[in-house]
Amino acid sequence: MSHTLQDEAHLVESTISSTLAYQGDFLRVKHDVVQLPNGKTAIREHIVHPGAVVIIPILDNGDVLLERQYRYPLGQVFIEFPAGKLDAGESPLACGKRELLEETGYTATAWAYAGKMHLAIGYTNEVIHIYFAKGLINGERKLDEEEFLDVFAAQPSQVLGWSRDGSITDSKTLTCVLWLQNYLSGTWPLNWTISAEEVPSRG
Amino acid sequence: MSHTLQDEAHLVESTISSTLAYQGDFLRVKHDVVQLPNGKTAIREHIVHPGAVVIIPILDNGDVLLERQYRYPLGQVFIEFPAGKLDAGESPLACGKRELLEETGYTATAWAYAGKMHLAIGYTNEVIHIYFAKGLINGERKLDEEEFLDVFAAQPSQVLGWSRDGSITDSKTLTCVLWLQNYLSGTWPLNWTISAEEVPSRG
Repeated sequence: MSHTLQDEAHLVESTISSTLAYQGDFLRVKHDVVQLPNGKTAIREHIVHPGAVVIIPILDNGDVLLERQYRYPLGQVFIEFPAGKLDAGESPLACGKRELLEETGYTATAWAYAGKMHLAIGYTNEVIHIYFAKGLINGERKLDEEEFLDVFAAQPSQVLGWSRDGSITDSKTLTCVLWLQNYLSGTWPLNWTISAEEVPSRG
Repeated sequence: MSHTLQDEAHLVESTISSTLAYQGDFLRVKHDVVQLPNGKTAIREHIVHPGAVVIIPILDNGDVLLERQYRYPLGQVFIEFPAGKLDAGESPLACGKRELLEETGYTATAWAYAGKMHLAIGYTNEVIHIYFAKGLINGERKLDEEEFLDVFAAQPSQVLGWSRDGSITDSKTLTCVLWLQNYLSGTWPLNWTISAEEVPSRG
């Protein structure tokens, strides 16, 4: 599916001015004046985000690795796939490997890029790159000082059930479940890359 | 799946202080000090959001209704299911009916609640309620003054293809595609409610 710019001219907004309205400890808010397709002006406020990676780690027995983490803005514990923000200059794959290790202790010998999602397109530019990871080898996790989370394994059928019954409501995780379901059914095959250097010597 | 509070005590953060750090035209940012599970303190910044509704409208011929809308934070046009924010005091179902009519011109004679998703759990409390709508009747749309969007119909198989190939990357829409796929396969049946008052008299 493709659209030309001509197709979209009646939808596009252009920037008239852009102001950094709030710079917090984590959040950075821009307050922009834009020109609408009809020539009028409007205000657009949005968060500037570095981007992130989410990983769907599949164990040799077919289970997937998940996390339980307290999310303060909602005051509850969520079931999520491992994820984290890109460091400055970091590639998505490097970020995926780092976050998987830090949060779960696992390294993977095979990685596949699935696609990307945009998280809250009305008010942030956050993009999350989706990776699958296989050939998982357990080690020691290295959580950030301010990070508290449980890691656990579940069967994909359980994950599907939790997505339906409201136990999983995190939209990045539900988007991953769409990928997981279609990958496992054979409908959406992946291109796996084997990282030879991460295969430990097997006596 | 259920967890007791006891299970989660090692994950939970509690509020020490909460400050309204930024009140913009649309975005409202809180800057809180929290106590971590280990007793230390940390900063949590998050957006306070009223909640929203997204609708999966299914036409009588099996196509679904979608929108193309320019999203300024990312500077591109997105394919999305119709959605919008809750007005103060508005129920999710009333919001769904209002947004479907305003954005697409359609009314529906049957509605089914699917579930909810949380959009960006690291920094907003936004929840999106997911509804399916059937028995669609076309009328005149009533866009907000600052709203510019195209409405179009597509087959569910096309929507699945676009979800895989990167034409659809909006996470609320991808979460809806998970629901759509499992509803259509018969795996996740829905409870439909027929709104008698919205069925026009049929000569």
